[in-house]
Amino acid sequence: MSQSSDSAAAPTVRVNQARLIDRLRQLAKIGARPEGGLNRQAFTDEDGQARKLMVSWATEAGLTVTTDEIGNLYMAHRPDGTDDRAPIMGGSHLDTQPAGGWLDGVYGVMAALEAVLAIKEQGLALTHPVEAVAWANEEGGRFQPGLMGSAYFTGHFTLDKADAIVDAGGARLSDEIERFLATTPELAQRQVPFAIAGLLEAHIEQGPILEDEGVPIGVVEGVQGIRWFQIDVRGVAAHAGTAPLGSRRDALIAATGMVQSLSRALHDPDDVLRFTVGKFIVSPGSPNTVADHVMFTIDLRHPDDDALDRSEEIIRKCVAEQAEPCEADIKVTEAVAPVRFAAPVIDTIEAAAGALDTPARRIVSGAGHDAAMMSGHAPVGMVFVPCHGGVSHHPDENADEEDLIAGAHVVATALARLAAS
Amino acid sequence: MSQSSDSAAAPTVRVNQARLIDRLRQLAKIGARPEGGLNRQAFTDEDGQARKLMVSWATEAGLTVTTDEIGNLYMAHRPDGTDDRAPIMGGSHLDTQPAGGWLDGVYGVMAALEAVLAIKEQGLALTHPVEAVAWANEEGGRFQPGLMGSAYFTGHFTLDKADAIVDAGGARLSDEIERFLATTPELAQRQVPFAIAGLLEAHIEQGPILEDEGVPIGVVEGVQGIRWFQIDVRGVAAHAGTAPLGSRRDALIAATGMVQSLSRALHDPDDVLRFTVGKFIVSPGSPNTVADHVMFTIDLRHPDDDALDRSEEIIRKCVAEQAEPCEADIKVTEAVAPVRFAAPVIDTIEAAAGALDTPARRIVSGAGHDAAMMSGHAPVGMVFVPCHGGVSHHPDENADEEDLIAGAHVVATALARLAAS
Repeated sequence: MSQSSDSAAAPTVRVNQARLIDRLRQLAKIGARPEGGLNRQAFTDEDGQARKLMVSWATEAGLTVTTDEIGNLYMAHRPDGTDDRAPIMGGSHLDTQPAGGWLDGVYGVMAALEAVLAIKEQGLALTHPVEAVAWANEEGGRFQPGLMGSAYFTGHFTLDKADAIVDAGGARLSDEIERFLATTPELAQRQVPFAIAGLLEAHIEQGPILEDEGVPIGVVEGVQGIRWFQIDVRGVAAHAGTAPLGSRRDALIAATGMVQSLSRALHDPDDVLRFTVGKFIVSPGSPNTVADHVMFTIDLRHPDDDALDRSEEIIRKCVAEQAEPCEADIKVTEAVAPVRFAAPVIDTIEAAAGALDTPARRIVSGAGHDAAMMSGHAPVGMVFVPCHGGVSHHPDENADEEDLIAGAHVVATALARLAAS
Repeated sequence: MSQSSDSAAAPTVRVNQARLIDRLRQLAKIGARPEGGLNRQAFTDEDGQARKLMVSWATEAGLTVTTDEIGNLYMAHRPDGTDDRAPIMGGSHLDTQPAGGWLDGVYGVMAALEAVLAIKEQGLALTHPVEAVAWANEEGGRFQPGLMGSAYFTGHFTLDKADAIVDAGGARLSDEIERFLATTPELAQRQVPFAIAGLLEAHIEQGPILEDEGVPIGVVEGVQGIRWFQIDVRGVAAHAGTAPLGSRRDALIAATGMVQSLSRALHDPDDVLRFTVGKFIVSPGSPNTVADHVMFTIDLRHPDDDALDRSEEIIRKCVAEQAEPCEADIKVTEAVAPVRFAAPVIDTIEAAAGALDTPARRIVSGAGHDAAMMSGHAPVGMVFVPCHGGVSHHPDENADEEDLIAGAHVVATALARLAAS
């Protein structure tokens, strides 16, 4: 593979692109479903197999491989003289959704591993160690909450809950973590948290913007805040043929009025605020009965918490106005504050793309990631690459190899620059 | 009980009101559910028990009791000299919804039986026989279609389909009818159809108008026409956080817009047209996914078929206008033409109420009934009595005893007048 260095402090680093793609293809076989896509949920046998394979590659390359009590995997290149410095890390996760794709998570781990290997193989001068990390149980499909490994690292999740958390089949989280750790008994356990000087996560965009614009690199400025609402509208059931209009308290008419009114009131011509009603359940749900209850959800996202507060006020006003003659109440069922990534990391990613002559644009993530969880603990940034049709969490999830490679070059270059500073 | 006759041709006839209520209470025990209400679905053991009890009362009173191949039950009083004349009939059905009430159907059968008994007991001069009828399987909850007994009588349903129709437990309609007929093996089978000179069905209103206005008798002019539509709106699923607004084809936004637009366009200030959306199903129905499909129903009712045609045009126009950027299609899933009852029967019912000094008003039925099915075959009318809160098809279904009695007096008087003419 090619390689060039502008200077010791601002090199460009290219990964071994053939190996990156080959190893992604190998990992795509672990948990592959006969009907397509992957089922490699956290702490399953398949998740353990992916871990073992990753450890074998890292060990064979001479990296220092460690773990922690929840099974986060650290693969470090520590040149002499860097031991007392906090590492620069890159990574994501190896687990998938129950019917997920071959890139969500694992691409970020492999881009980071190849970046660390490229830096090591090219003998670049570093002032910080560089490490690739695979956070455990990001998806949370089998054991909730998701982002479990990074939440454990940052103290937002503790293992005293692990006996009480069971999967749909009754398996206990504590037992499954023990079984998972036993796949790699040779690894030393590391005390967490430890200081991290910079953290980079590469990921497919899970949205259509980069593909639509033909830009291979998204420099992620942060993650949108998310607020979820549950609206319950209560009316009175009545016979469709016999109930006079004047006496009706039709929960469906009120609720559809709310959705239309909200959709207009929350329309953002700049397309930053995202408003979605995805769940809308009508009771009793019979064609000839006036509905006595509608429950619907609102998913609201914006990079700015104040904007979410203002939108919540609009929601409360619209729902109250449209409720008549029914009754309605609003519950906030989830509130995740927006995350802004660290300017030095964002700038380094952008400069790395520029040095590699790879077109890039700033972007805000609409989905949560381990990087967002880690952003309170370390200077964090993310690199997005385009994915086909914006599809993820689906067997059809895919991306162009050249974009996966371009993203890994950017990760390697940014990691090297941060580790050399 | 009291009794008076204005004249041979225009008597007033009062039923044995204590026996009416006592027998309704006895029948309410057959199929009673521990949690309240009745489950006495068509052709079940309970339906057979109700039939046996009814036959025993009719036989003991000296009525001529017959049946037909589908299990309709005819209880006739045939004074000398009426044998060559078509009967005047009254009745309804004995079967209930799976969680129904104690009056829907059975009240009409008992009012008619008590009317026939009163006419017989009081020795009124008749030119026509009088009969009470219990039509089989009106509700259609267990075996579809409903109105099966009256549809069989009129040739709209034939028994060659009875092998292919099964209930949710796999029981065949043909077997269950055979079992049902075997509960009363002594009954002679009658050839149907036969000429009917007049038919009266008493029923609880299943709506709130009579109760709200404090009027005990509804003189039913006809049954609203019903048209059912299924609207399918197709969009594209997308991630709530990442899909730009401009690219969204949100089936839920389009469908709620249709419901709101239709609700405005079909609003009838005179409250004759009834428009109801009772079923509204969203796919995939996840809070953070833009909906790719909504299916909703429209229940449209009006006493005039032309008005239904005009409303259907409005529906097609609104749906087309609101579909953008999704696609929508409309299916008519049911179309029942309005029924106008026979003027001589309506007038006789109204005159009977007047002669009994019982307040009455004209009313249109919002629900279907055996009487509507029979209206192509015979001059038909219906008598409604108020029910509490307009509730029916529900364990809470109830009515004041005095209204049930008043309705039976009207049935008896009208039946006697029609049979004497």
